[in-house]
Amino acid sequence: MHIPRLLINFKAYMESSGDRAVEISKSAERIWREMGVLIGVSPNIVDLRLISSSVEIPVFAQHVDPIPAGAYTGHVPPILVKEAGARGSLLNHSEKQIPLRHIAESINMMRDLNLISIVCSPTPSESAAVAALLPDAIAVEPPELIGSGIPVSKAKPEVILNSLRSVKAINSAIPLLCGAGISSGDDVKAALELGSYGVLVASAVTKSPDPQRKIRELAEPIASFTRA
Amino acid sequence: MHIPRLLINFKAYMESSGDRAVEISKSAERIWREMGVLIGVSPNIVDLRLISSSVEIPVFAQHVDPIPAGAYTGHVPPILVKEAGARGSLLNHSEKQIPLRHIAESINMMRDLNLISIVCSPTPSESAAVAALLPDAIAVEPPELIGSGIPVSKAKPEVILNSLRSVKAINSAIPLLCGAGISSGDDVKAALELGSYGVLVASAVTKSPDPQRKIRELAEPIASFTRA
Amino acid sequence: MHIPRLLINFKAYMESSGDRAVEISKSAERIWREMGVLIGVSPNIVDLRLISSSVEIPVFAQHVDPIPAGAYTGHVPPILVKEAGARGSLLNHSEKQIPLRHIAESINMMRDLNLISIVCSPTPSESAAVAALLPDAIAVEPPELIGSGIPVSKAKPEVILNSLRSVKAINSAIPLLCGAGISSGDDVKAALELGSYGVLVASAVTKSPDPQRKIRELAEPIASFTRA
Amino acid sequence: MHIPRLLINFKAYMESSGDRAVEISKSAERIWREMGVLIGVSPNIVDLRLISSSVEIPVFAQHVDPIPAGAYTGHVPPILVKEAGARGSLLNHSEKQIPLRHIAESINMMRDLNLISIVCSPTPSESAAVAALLPDAIAVEPPELIGSGIPVSKAKPEVILNSLRSVKAINSAIPLLCGAGISSGDDVKAALELGSYGVLVASAVTKSPDPQRKIRELAEPIASFTRA
Repeated sequence: MHIPRLLINFKAYMESSGDRAVEISKSAERIWREMGVLIGVSPNIVDLRLISSSVEIPVFAQHVDPIPAGAYTGHVPPILVKEAGARGSLLNHSEKQIPLRHIAESINMMRDLNLISIVCSPTPSESAAVAALLPDAIAVEPPELIGSGIPVSKAKPEVILNSLRSVKAINSAIPLLCGAGISSGDDVKAALELGSYGVLVASAVTKSPDPQRKIRELAEPIASFTRA
Repeated sequence: MHIPRLLINFKAYMESSGDRAVEISKSAERIWREMGVLIGVSPNIVDLRLISSSVEIPVFAQHVDPIPAGAYTGHVPPILVKEAGARGSLLNHSEKQIPLRHIAESINMMRDLNLISIVCSPTPSESAAVAALLPDAIAVEPPELIGSGIPVSKAKPEVILNSLRSVKAINSAIPLLCGAGISSGDDVKAALELGSYGVLVASAVTKSPDPQRKIRELAEPIASFTRA
Repeated sequence: MHIPRLLINFKAYMESSGDRAVEISKSAERIWREMGVLIGVSPNIVDLRLISSSVEIPVFAQHVDPIPAGAYTGHVPPILVKEAGARGSLLNHSEKQIPLRHIAESINMMRDLNLISIVCSPTPSESAAVAALLPDAIAVEPPELIGSGIPVSKAKPEVILNSLRSVKAINSAIPLLCGAGISSGDDVKAALELGSYGVLVASAVTKSPDPQRKIRELAEPIASFTRA
Repeated sequence: MHIPRLLINFKAYMESSGDRAVEISKSAERIWREMGVLIGVSPNIVDLRLISSSVEIPVFAQHVDPIPAGAYTGHVPPILVKEAGARGSLLNHSEKQIPLRHIAESINMMRDLNLISIVCSPTPSESAAVAALLPDAIAVEPPELIGSGIPVSKAKPEVILNSLRSVKAINSAIPLLCGAGISSGDDVKAALELGSYGVLVASAVTKSPDPQRKIRELAEPIASFTRA
């Protein structure tokens, strides 16, 4: 199972929907081929199938509901997300918080379907809690820095260090991504040096005048770091 | 604005997702061409764009969130649904109940985008409440009959009659669909004779061994009735 | 059934909890005896029984869940609220929005228990929607003015006028209270002159250095107006 | 800080509200004095203050919201629960599931107020997740056995054993209660022998024709066990 080192969340932005979602995803694919850095994209659910059929890099839903296929108007079961070509899903993003039991059930359902679960968490202690549920990866993001342009890796390095420590104490095999305010290659480098497996970004790429250049900038420190 | 007389809700069924969603939608389109009965389909959100680009009949989301495009991971704003080709959305289905204010805000946002809002309601008095919010149509469905195979139009005709009366008292221009347990042409006929503008169906079509034949059966009384 | 002309919402303020809740409620009771203006209080649920047993004026819960008595940990059925001495409940406050169906079900359950339902609404069209559900009273409060100190009755008189018009069109017997930013006797007078049956207030009283004097100030225009 | 060995959840039952809530609580207090077994009661929030002022045994809310005192109509901040005399709160009961972040924030707010947090969980892995958030105690209850009369301690001993193991791995100081279907002294004995610190019960006591006798029956094995 391949967890992306750079995961781009398209949220519900116009700038990263429809044709633009395809374009950004193809840019990410190009950088992956160019540099060998595994990049994932998480488009809005309306674009999920379109993106899955347009690129070979892994595509993630932004949320799934812990339900089987069935009579659930307005809900999205993991199996339909898989059928639409996704390789996994984000869960519990600070913009889409869900009950503890839904996190646990969704992880289990996704595991049975061979879908990658990446669970978001705002703090070290919640990262530890999530780790106990055995997701495939955890993405720690202090909500107050999301979209702020203030990089977690520089402004709150202790959030990353403490999350790493507390997650490792529970299960040393779960990779930790970090996010919130990451907008330059330098921010990514700082995150990796602290011990992050990778980073989660959104507006830095989706609102960039030149997303491909921005993705390359963010991927470069990962390429250097993982080569080293 | 064209409100379908027959609206097929695909829910989150496997039987009406992916390729099968396309197939059922194409069947509906064929019946529309054959009989002139306007049929709408409401696929799962993962299939929305696929279906919109496959057929000319109107396609409806099963739910939208009352938000603009933006930083809303795991949410679906009306504008993205429109961009994906939908002509409107269901709202407040009994399987996806939302706060009163969300109904009002979603209707307003959809009106501004020229998207058709069809708001579900379980009872006559809630149909009246919804009518006051001026949606494009209302679909009354007693939850206890949904998926039961017991047709609302025969088992609870008073729900339809009282909904019609109470909606008309508020705004006589809002068409009323009815649903729950509708599974034969006869059930549709009964609904129309009571005064329904149309019907909302799900498993009767999606789980049929021959969806096209079933759609034809359900559309026939509408064709007769609207010709009469 | 007696709907208060002045309803004081204690929210979850420290300033209006425990002993202070009793004191404010007794002040309200005194003004009621002094002026004959019916005043209601809506304490936090932890204080509901304490207040109900301390004063004779009507006490309202701030919210109830649409459930019977039973295995509902962390929920509050209307019947327990009644048993604790409440005379009714607020519902759907902008700080506690609930699904349309919960509003309808709660109103029905409260009616069966002889409890007064006062349903909050942010706009004229939602006031009309609520009116169709036949609550005992409606309280319209534009959320952006709640706690602002800018009185709805002066800053947005059209919200009151349009709510009155749209509620009357549905059921002319439902009294309309208005709230948000009401903090002086003058604001109350303006509300009554526009046609409000009464007003809903919170911080103006609960955070006042002299709640009794403030209640008297707010009740005076009601006394004059209803005498007139 | 004293965590009860026997915690009685009154839910929203008529049989354990108002005067009956006082009576059951006084019975629990008597057994505590008689046997020295610490018993806690968790009345419905409408009865919280009444019970707190009637008995000396610890009283727990059934839920709190992760908010400070303030403009939160229809919500209950921990500080008001404390002011009403509670010694702590249950959280995340299977009948009142809350987002992971709310659990974390509520625990932290309660710790700052010296309130005891007892967090419910349905499975061993969710118990571990909760343990990482450092509550004062965890209560594991398989939801399918709640109210069933089939005791978790006999029907699903592995849930208790695995929860103990996984909680200990994270923090060996957090006591584990277990619940669901516990209705006899024998069920309690089985729970203690498996390693439970105590038990959580509801209908076995609240719906008993003789609650005091039932509480004594449930407390006896605890008295024997803790003496041993």
